[in-house]
Amino acid sequence: MIIVDNLQYANWSEKIFLEMNKGSVNAVHVTVAYHENFRETILNLEKWNTWFERFPKLIMKGMTSDDILLAHQLKKTAIFFGFQNPSPIEDDIGLLEVFHQLGVRFMQLSYNNQSLLATGCYEDEDPGLTRFGVQAVKEMNRLGMVIDMSHSAERSTLEAIQYSDRPIAITHANPHYWHPALRNKSHQVLSELTSSNGMLGFSIYPHHLKDGTSCSLKSFCEMISEAALKYGSDRLGIGSDLCQDQPDSVVTWMRTGRWSKEMDYGEGSAENPGFPTQPSWFKDNTDFSILADGLSNSGFSPSEVNGIMGENWVKFYKNSFGVCQNE
Amino acid sequence: MIIVDNLQYANWSEKIFLEMNKGSVNAVHVTVAYHENFRETILNLEKWNTWFERFPKLIMKGMTSDDILLAHQLKKTAIFFGFQNPSPIEDDIGLLEVFHQLGVRFMQLSYNNQSLLATGCYEDEDPGLTRFGVQAVKEMNRLGMVIDMSHSAERSTLEAIQYSDRPIAITHANPHYWHPALRNKSHQVLSELTSSNGMLGFSIYPHHLKDGTSCSLKSFCEMISEAALKYGSDRLGIGSDLCQDQPDSVVTWMRTGRWSKEMDYGEGSAENPGFPTQPSWFKDNTDFSILADGLSNSGFSPSEVNGIMGENWVKFYKNSFGVCQNE
Repeated sequence: MIIVDNLQYANWSEKIFLEMNKGSVNAVHVTVAYHENFRETILNLEKWNTWFERFPKLIMKGMTSDDILLAHQLKKTAIFFGFQNPSPIEDDIGLLEVFHQLGVRFMQLSYNNQSLLATGCYEDEDPGLTRFGVQAVKEMNRLGMVIDMSHSAERSTLEAIQYSDRPIAITHANPHYWHPALRNKSHQVLSELTSSNGMLGFSIYPHHLKDGTSCSLKSFCEMISEAALKYGSDRLGIGSDLCQDQPDSVVTWMRTGRWSKEMDYGEGSAENPGFPTQPSWFKDNTDFSILADGLSNSGFSPSEVNGIMGENWVKFYKNSFGVCQNE
Repeated sequence: MIIVDNLQYANWSEKIFLEMNKGSVNAVHVTVAYHENFRETILNLEKWNTWFERFPKLIMKGMTSDDILLAHQLKKTAIFFGFQNPSPIEDDIGLLEVFHQLGVRFMQLSYNNQSLLATGCYEDEDPGLTRFGVQAVKEMNRLGMVIDMSHSAERSTLEAIQYSDRPIAITHANPHYWHPALRNKSHQVLSELTSSNGMLGFSIYPHHLKDGTSCSLKSFCEMISEAALKYGSDRLGIGSDLCQDQPDSVVTWMRTGRWSKEMDYGEGSAENPGFPTQPSWFKDNTDFSILADGLSNSGFSPSEVNGIMGENWVKFYKNSFGVCQNE
C-alpha cells in the first residue's frame, strides 16, 4: 500500500522521521510557511536541506509523483513542500517560479485572513479573487503548482475552482455538513471541487472533527463513506493536519502571525488556547494502518482503501506538478 | 564543434540570443550577480526565467553537462548561472544549496575587494581564505558548485586550490607574463590550477589583452599556444568576458557597487572610464568561428581546437556539477 499524507506541520526531528519510516509513509506534504516572508521561507527550506543531508536513509525531497514510487521502493518518505499562505511570494509573481524550482508544489491563496490573492475563511466579507490572485492562479497553472484553498472563504474558493485551468485541492478539511466548523467546506464547494477533478484531503485535526478529540474512528470513516457516495472515492485522500510535538507557541504563530496585537484563538478558545489532543486512533505517523483498517471495516473495497490512503494523491500529483498536459 | 563561452555579462536581449544561435554557441556561463544581495540576485534569476519563457527556441537553462549536448542537438544555447562575488549568499552558508538548486554552478569567492570569504586582486593585503571561506569551499565541493577565482588575489587563489577537494576554475583571465594586468594570473597560480585539473578560460576583455583593443587574433592565439605548452591544452577554454550592449553605467556598478562614494576606475582610467572597445575579431557571439580558425592557424590540431572551443569545459562541467565522485 502507498501511503500519502497531504498535510503535516510537525516539529520535525529524527524521531518523527523514524516514525514515518516505521509507519511506511511514502510521502508527506509538509508546510514550509504560514506567515513567513520570502527570506524567512528560504530559511525554512534551508532547514529542510539540512534534514535531507542528515537523514538520507529516512527522507528524500519529493519533486514529482515518481518520487513517491521511488521512496516506496527505497523505504523512505518523500517530502513535498507547500505554503499555507501566499506570504512567501510577497508582491512578486516571479517568486512562484523560483519556489517551484525549489520544490514547492502547493500554495494556499489565503490563510484565514484576507491575503493579496484571496479571502480567508475567518473574514466577514469575501470579495473573491483579487487581481493579483487571478494572475497567480494562471501562473501556478503554467508552472504546475497546486492551488490549495483549505483556509480560504467560500466565494474565493469557488472562484479559484472556476479560474483554474487545472484541478485544485483542499488539502486538509472535512465536510461542513458533518461538522460545521468555519474551516470545513460546504457541499457546493466539495461538489465543484471534485467534479472538476480536484482533491479533498480529510483532516484529523480535532477542531475539524465531530466530537473533537473524542471523535471515533468509526465516525470519521462513516464521514468518508458518505463523501465517497456524494463525490466519488477517487477524489478523496488524507491530509491529516498532524502538528506533532509542536509547542503551543506555534499554534499562536499560526493563528496570529504578526498581523494582530490581540490574541486570536482561531478554532480554540481562551480556556483551550493550545494544540488540541489528537484522537486516540491517530497520534503519529505509525497510525495510518489503523485508519486503513477503519476504512476497510466501513465497507470500502481494497482498491478504494488504497486510493484514499495514497494512490489518489499519487495520480493527482502526476497530473498536477508538470507542465500542463493541455499544452 | 561544441562551443562553450565560460563568461559573459551582456545586456541580454532577443538580438543577443539570436546571435548566439547564429554563432552556434551551445553554452554560455552568464553572470547573475556582481554586488547583488540575496533578494536582488533572486530578481536577476526571475529575469532569466522570463527570458527562458519568452525565447524557448533560442535558449534553455543549463543544469548539467548533458544540457550542453542537448542544446547542441536542439540548436539552442544552454545558459549556466554564476556569481562574480559571494554577495548573494550574504552571511548564510545555507544559501549555497538554495542557489545550487536554482541552477547556480559557479561562484567567485571575491570580486576585486575583500569579501567575507577571500581577498580580491585589487586589495593591498591578502590574508588568504577566511573562516567562512574555508567552510564555503567545503560546501561548494559537496554540492557541485565551482569555485571561481578570476578576480581574487594571489594567496587566496592558491589557498582555494589547496583547500578545494575538487578542481576549481579561473573562468576569465589571461597569463600575467603575457600581459601584466592585476587581473591576469601568475605562472604559479596557473600551474597549480591546471596541475590540479582546474580550468583556465581565456578572456577577450580588452584590459586583459596585450595591446588592449588592438590585440591581434594572432597574438591572442600565440598566447594560448604558449599556455598549452606550459599547462596542457586540455585545461584551457574560453571565458570571453563579453559585456555586449551594456551602458557604461554598468561598468561603474561592476567596479564600485555600493562600497565607495568615490569613483574607482578599475582597469580603466578617468580618461577612459567606460567599457573598452572589443577587438575587431571578437565583437559578439557570431565571432567564435574566427577564433577557432585562429587556433587552427596557430598550429593546434582539430581535436585541440575542439577542446579549447568547448569540449574541455564540457568535461569539466561533467565532473564538477554533481555530487563528488569520490563519495
